Amino acid sequence: MDCLFCNVINKKEDAYVIFEDESHVAIMDKYPIQKGHSLVMPKMHHEKITDMTDVAVAKLFSKVPVVARAIIAATGADGFNIGQNNGRSANQIIPHVHVHIIPRYGQAGNLWTKRMISNEDDLAALAKKIKNKIKSG
Amino acid sequence: MDCLFCNVINKKEDAYVIFEDESHVAIMDKYPIQKGHSLVMPKMHHEKITDMTDVAVAKLFSKVPVVARAIIAATGADGFNIGQNNGRSANQIIPHVHVHIIPRYGQAGNLWTKRMISNEDDLAALAKKIKNKIKSG
Repeated sequence: MDCLFCNVINKKEDAYVIFEDESHVAIMDKYPIQKGHSLVMPKMHHEKITDMTDVAVAKLFSKVPVVARAIIAATGADGFNIGQNNGRSANQIIPHVHVHIIPRYGQAGNLWTKRMISNEDDLAALAKKIKNKIKSG
Repeated sequence: MDCLFCNVINKKEDAYVIFEDESHVAIMDKYPIQKGHSLVMPKMHHEKITDMTDVAVAKLFSKVPVVARAIIAATGADGFNIGQNNGRSANQIIPHVHVHIIPRYGQAGNLWTKRMISNEDDLAALAKKIKNKIKSG
């Protein structure tokens, strides 16, 4: 089975990693809905959160406020959405559990369908900034 | 401070409760995006998950797969979205942390903007069904 996120976790695929511990990785979404859009995922491969133990789900989501606070500190966002899709009918594209953190700015729209192409340099710079905020937090 | 969800938790406001423990309540969303759309919330009042301790966030989200499995068993959904909005710019309407569980069916759309008005009887019947699935799970 070839899973893009397993490859990211195993460093076979490039990504801007902003957080990592024994069981989790957080990266910048390469096709962000908003500046700072990031993903938090368990290293263990599961398709849906209902395939995970409740304890593993708890551990995964305990990392979400940690990363969200750093994104807010780095970007000045004044709100954020958490999203997590399970199954094709729920618009899950990559079948490895991942939690979207999408920062919001002022009256910016909150549709989930609009993606933007990011400049790689901007993404790298922002990743560094968020990473530093997590370290210093 | 008058908070709609605090009132639900304190039984001053009606809601179809499908799950309750010492620290959490899950109810049917009264304006569901899809059949079975439910909300899981902590009893303690906080506006955003970044205002909660990481441990409290973990506990809250550990209840999400429990409720999601019951919704799937009760509705036959083949996927579901998890959503949780923090702040007005993220389209948070009620400033008390709540996690949306939105079941999905086949190729149904996955926009977050479409709400439907439910028949109260349908909502009550479905709430009962989900509640029983949680008990028997």
